Amino acid sequence: MSELLSAPPTPDFAHYPWHGLKSARVNDDWVECRWADGASHRFYGLWLWENTVGRGIDPTTREMVVDPGDLPTVPIVDGVEIGDNGTLVIRWTDHSTDRLHPGWLRSIADCQQAPLAAIGDARPWPLQQWDESPPTIDGRSILIDDSVLQAWLTTLVRYGLARLSGVGDDPDFLFGLAKRIGPIRSTNFGAVFSVRSILNPSAEENSVANTGVMLGQHTDLPTRETPPGFQLLHCVANTASGGWATMTDGAALVEHLRRVAPEEHRALTTLRWIFANRSPDADHRWSAPMIELPESGRPLTLRCFYPVRAVPDMDEHELPGMYRAMRKFSELARAGEFAIRFPYAPGDLVAFDNRRVLHGRDAFDAAGGERHLRGCYFDHDDVYSRLRVLRRNRKGL
Amino acid sequence: MSELLSAPPTPDFAHYPWHGLKSARVNDDWVECRWADGASHRFYGLWLWENTVGRGIDPTTREMVVDPGDLPTVPIVDGVEIGDNGTLVIRWTDHSTDRLHPGWLRSIADCQQAPLAAIGDARPWPLQQWDESPPTIDGRSILIDDSVLQAWLTTLVRYGLARLSGVGDDPDFLFGLAKRIGPIRSTNFGAVFSVRSILNPSAEENSVANTGVMLGQHTDLPTRETPPGFQLLHCVANTASGGWATMTDGAALVEHLRRVAPEEHRALTTLRWIFANRSPDADHRWSAPMIELPESGRPLTLRCFYPVRAVPDMDEHELPGMYRAMRKFSELARAGEFAIRFPYAPGDLVAFDNRRVLHGRDAFDAAGGERHLRGCYFDHDDVYSRLRVLRRNRKGL
Repeated sequence: MSELLSAPPTPDFAHYPWHGLKSARVNDDWVECRWADGASHRFYGLWLWENTVGRGIDPTTREMVVDPGDLPTVPIVDGVEIGDNGTLVIRWTDHSTDRLHPGWLRSIADCQQAPLAAIGDARPWPLQQWDESPPTIDGRSILIDDSVLQAWLTTLVRYGLARLSGVGDDPDFLFGLAKRIGPIRSTNFGAVFSVRSILNPSAEENSVANTGVMLGQHTDLPTRETPPGFQLLHCVANTASGGWATMTDGAALVEHLRRVAPEEHRALTTLRWIFANRSPDADHRWSAPMIELPESGRPLTLRCFYPVRAVPDMDEHELPGMYRAMRKFSELARAGEFAIRFPYAPGDLVAFDNRRVLHGRDAFDAAGGERHLRGCYFDHDDVYSRLRVLRRNRKGL
Repeated sequence: MSELLSAPPTPDFAHYPWHGLKSARVNDDWVECRWADGASHRFYGLWLWENTVGRGIDPTTREMVVDPGDLPTVPIVDGVEIGDNGTLVIRWTDHSTDRLHPGWLRSIADCQQAPLAAIGDARPWPLQQWDESPPTIDGRSILIDDSVLQAWLTTLVRYGLARLSGVGDDPDFLFGLAKRIGPIRSTNFGAVFSVRSILNPSAEENSVANTGVMLGQHTDLPTRETPPGFQLLHCVANTASGGWATMTDGAALVEHLRRVAPEEHRALTTLRWIFANRSPDADHRWSAPMIELPESGRPLTLRCFYPVRAVPDMDEHELPGMYRAMRKFSELARAGEFAIRFPYAPGDLVAFDNRRVLHGRDAFDAAGGERHLRGCYFDHDDVYSRLRVLRRNRKGL
């Protein structure tokens, strides 16, 4: 028998608030716990064994080290009781015992109620009119102040759009910010890319993005299995007139479409296009609907970028209706009910959920001034991870 | 009327073999084409307009530039005929005309028959016995010879596993190889990571991977929405005895499970776990079944890594059956019928589909010699893109 209190199967950075146990008993292969506040949960005995340090968990690396093919057979739990120090004392069928932290047990119970809750709750934008400002955070201290980083990422995850102001005009600022967030999602356009007007573009820069023409509401890289989750656009120079950002809350738009135009909603959520983007050095393709509704934990994903919507991948009789649906969708996407419109000033950094939010820009006079944005992508995974760590570190604030 | 032959809506790198047209006519809003070899296809008129240079396509950038909300209304095609030079002459309702390349039209028709065909056909491994060699390509000239790169990637995509031999022991070789493929998928473990035995690991290196213990068959990073598609492991040093690679063809295993153990197959393909990985600087979580069957174009995706299979996300009455299913799966995964086993020599580079293939290693004596692998990930998207470009450039070879 181990005389030491078994630590919970987590490294030292994790701290579990104490939740006193009221009762515990074994019922078949299950351990039933009830806490003082009335909450209760049943733990499968074999799962508890897997997750106990010195049993399924290696004491040094704190990782589970037992292949499922080598797990002991059930029954594995012989009995439980609440120990003198309030821990759950568990007696295994080989007569050895361990003590488990009741706060850790409670955290597992709570996690099973709301498995991915720490990500936060998506909400429609508070602003849904043209010429209003997006949710904005003062970003001057974001490279050194975790509370600013947390406020900005929380806003971004919740509303799908969050602007930083006052971050300066260093063209490499995004690299420094990435060190605060996590790995950049690199693409064939590089880790950090530029959007600027170019009078004599090279083949690689030969994109409509690098002209002064209007860009309709779109999402980036629908040619990928999982398009980039978040996009950051940092304005490092802007002496051109025009070129305002236009942003549409796709989540609100799709819900509106479902209510007022069910046939268009059906077409856009079920019929597929092949999205394709070819250049001398790349050939990306993916087949999917323009609107992928949330499913199995995957979030809403819009694929709207007419330059790469290449070939229909649907029954041909659906095509006329598809064009009607796309027209309806585009008209709504640029309407004031779902979009906002705002200028870029040097030092602004606009971040948005590239799978939820459509973005575009007004035309501008490329000969009348310089306009230079620096951009990069992050996967949802890495932003959510950073946000969970920030919340863990600042618990109680 | 334009007197010039309109180029197909693609840049100069694309060349379309000529396919002579036999007949063409307008039927409602559709253009019906029949080629000399008997093939036929119907093109929706508005789609043709969108994809014609000077109409929907900007002549400079060769991108579609018309927002769907601004497309003309149907009917848009007034008539068609086969021109003197064999092109499709199309007369729009505004009386202007264009000429379209019949080989380009045919490529669209063929694409709609098999939208993503260029990726290649997945096949079970030719080798399914322990102590056999994986499919192996001589990699000495891979940094300069496109035919070697194409042969290796074709094998990798087809069988899920392909080894290069003779690539040397430069620890930074993967960075050079990545310049030949595309952007590395970076994670919180870096762009290129090391797997080596470490006697006194730091917190970041404190992983079972960096010990000499056996690692059961697993897939990397099931904590992500889309786990990395391909993993590369380059052996730069190995004087330890043991530590052989073990690789299992998950595609064959899952199909076998479906036939012989339908209840276990149901459990593993439908019931969900929360996969979680926490460190002082990261907190990744995702909820999914351990086997995600191919669906809507997404490939088979295995999520099998016991150290991060954290909390059940299923009805509790399913849990005993889930443990039985995991035991069955693990026993099959290490059996000779589905796995091969081979040593790492310096200069070997083993690449595998991390969503299809489980990998592991035998134990080795970490004090008895040095063993150092360098690894990185690529998304499926970027490998498929590179393979399409290689095939396009070497057409006819």
